[in-house]
Amino acid sequence: MGALPNISLSRRLRRTPFSDGVEAAGVSAYTVYNHMLLPTVFRSLEEDYHHLKSAVQVWDVSCERQVELRGPDAGRLMQMLTPRDLRGMMPGQCYYVPIVDETGGMLNDPVAVKLAEDRWWISIADSDLLLWVKGIVYGFRLDVLVDEPDVSPLAVQGPLAEDLMAAVFGDGVRAVRFFRFGHFQFMGRELVVARSGYSRQGGYEIYVEGWDVGMPLWNALFEAGAGMDVRAGCPNGIERIESGLLSYGNDMTDDNTPHECGLGRFCNTQTAIGCIGRDALLRVSIEGPVQQIRPISISGPPVPPCTSAWPMRAGNTVVGRVTSAAWSPDHETNVAIGMVRMTHWDPGSELTLHTPSGQREAVVEPAFWN
Amino acid sequence: MGALPNISLSRRLRRTPFSDGVEAAGVSAYTVYNHMLLPTVFRSLEEDYHHLKSAVQVWDVSCERQVELRGPDAGRLMQMLTPRDLRGMMPGQCYYVPIVDETGGMLNDPVAVKLAEDRWWISIADSDLLLWVKGIVYGFRLDVLVDEPDVSPLAVQGPLAEDLMAAVFGDGVRAVRFFRFGHFQFMGRELVVARSGYSRQGGYEIYVEGWDVGMPLWNALFEAGAGMDVRAGCPNGIERIESGLLSYGNDMTDDNTPHECGLGRFCNTQTAIGCIGRDALLRVSIEGPVQQIRPISISGPPVPPCTSAWPMRAGNTVVGRVTSAAWSPDHETNVAIGMVRMTHWDPGSELTLHTPSGQREAVVEPAFWN
Repeated sequence: MGALPNISLSRRLRRTPFSDGVEAAGVSAYTVYNHMLLPTVFRSLEEDYHHLKSAVQVWDVSCERQVELRGPDAGRLMQMLTPRDLRGMMPGQCYYVPIVDETGGMLNDPVAVKLAEDRWWISIADSDLLLWVKGIVYGFRLDVLVDEPDVSPLAVQGPLAEDLMAAVFGDGVRAVRFFRFGHFQFMGRELVVARSGYSRQGGYEIYVEGWDVGMPLWNALFEAGAGMDVRAGCPNGIERIESGLLSYGNDMTDDNTPHECGLGRFCNTQTAIGCIGRDALLRVSIEGPVQQIRPISISGPPVPPCTSAWPMRAGNTVVGRVTSAAWSPDHETNVAIGMVRMTHWDPGSELTLHTPSGQREAVVEPAFWN
Repeated sequence: MGALPNISLSRRLRRTPFSDGVEAAGVSAYTVYNHMLLPTVFRSLEEDYHHLKSAVQVWDVSCERQVELRGPDAGRLMQMLTPRDLRGMMPGQCYYVPIVDETGGMLNDPVAVKLAEDRWWISIADSDLLLWVKGIVYGFRLDVLVDEPDVSPLAVQGPLAEDLMAAVFGDGVRAVRFFRFGHFQFMGRELVVARSGYSRQGGYEIYVEGWDVGMPLWNALFEAGAGMDVRAGCPNGIERIESGLLSYGNDMTDDNTPHECGLGRFCNTQTAIGCIGRDALLRVSIEGPVQQIRPISISGPPVPPCTSAWPMRAGNTVVGRVTSAAWSPDHETNVAIGMVRMTHWDPGSELTLHTPSGQREAVVEPAFWN
């Protein structure tokens, strides 16, 4: 594994309202997510990791694009899209919702934001969910408008996130509960602010509505956080594995059911009336999945980045695959996420992992690390 | 514009059957296309450019994923998806087909490959067209299977492409006409080989069916081409602009109609019965678009990469935007693609372009360069 290759920038890899700030902060690597630039490293993966766990970071996660549903059929459509029962969901709540196709294969694992009975945002993982939703709406002639609005999430994550947010939005943000949101003022604009984010260090996601308010908000957060060692950051490849935060496209694809991904508790196939994939998932929920996501520790020195699924064997039989892996400085082992067949998914199960840097011992852990 | 940032590799940015060969050939930069790695530079953009125009290159364009349609409703579905009239299309033909939503906005600009009446491949540009097609199929309860098969295109492009292809597949490939395909043997496998590709230097695209045949074919091409200075290459950012080859996501998005993109000739709204977007496009075809793609030359020294749309002004009014640009060594000017309003789209029109490296003079050209 030599130096990382470069990324060729073009309009197709969309910039964000915060890109100027991200560049000024010295971003050193990107990935592409929903056709948009997502920073992956600033100083180094490990330095970013320690800082995230001890201070506060501002993350440009604009690439969590929104699919907006508006109109009388918006609620019905939302329930068609997910096997999670949404009847108890109130405006002001966020739900993690698996989205599956008619066979129960995962198409996305977004967060649904219920703004009103007839207005929703779906804050998506990396697939063009807009096209699936538009196809369904067209096919069923639903009375709902679907588009991608000018809304770019900005995350504030880390143990000091609440203090920083309070400094900019007022103490009212302290009262926002996990996976709830409120409306808060900035520059005379009302922004949706949710307690959520792609880390286990605590924090918020600001749904920045309007490109023009992006850099002023970015700058306000850095000014208010000067005394808190606030830094530009991004979802951290080590922390998210320690925390067991799955990544669509890495740890699951449309080959997988929610049950395989440990998301069975979000599938209410008995009550989520009219949802796509219900028949297939009902069958899965009766029989149970034959493979499932597990935390995996890997022996030896730091592994290289996991750029394709690494097979895990018991004897000569492939019984699983590791799909994300990183060296954890805090836990002094390689932490990983993998899909393991039921014959070998119990904690303590010892398997042989084949990586580009040779054969390693892999152990199924009882729980994720954070 | 300093050094390019790095790209963080992960399973989500999928490798291809040819990635090992691409790496061994010294790829220096990538972009991401359909969640897959697409090489963008090997030696340098300019060195790759001169070589493409004088010799022959092998391109890993696996990222041109296929959406496969199989079943009794496949033909009906294909005609629903595009406003191009497909009635005269025979098995063995490839058609460039705009795909639009119900408002006539471009969702993709793929090549449709008709394998049989009931079996099609759609060789897609950079959007998850699979999700749109699956949504339509589900909504209309069509009797057709839709998925992404294990098919990865490998392009052979350049003036010596025909000689190289004949050395590997036999002289029969010389008889394949433009945008036609035939079936040719390799390692006992029958592969679809079309005369097509994302350059104007001539060549073929091999639809490599089966991951395992990828590297053997890659190696066979390099062995057979040793005397032709064959090199690993990729779609070239300079050559494709000179040639007026549009890029979905760069030069057009779902905001644009086919007519704005100069693709009106592929929209048979009077005869393509049942196509999605027909009503909207019929209106557009009557009134004509108010803006359209044009070749643009830009004065001065080489421009930086176009990473966001650059506004073009006449006086104080924005009348267009440049979306792709590069310095052309052969034409000794900056060549560009832009969208220009009808008031200023005539050849010779002189506009003021705002780039990150300052203000430049932009001229609407009568034709693309190649």
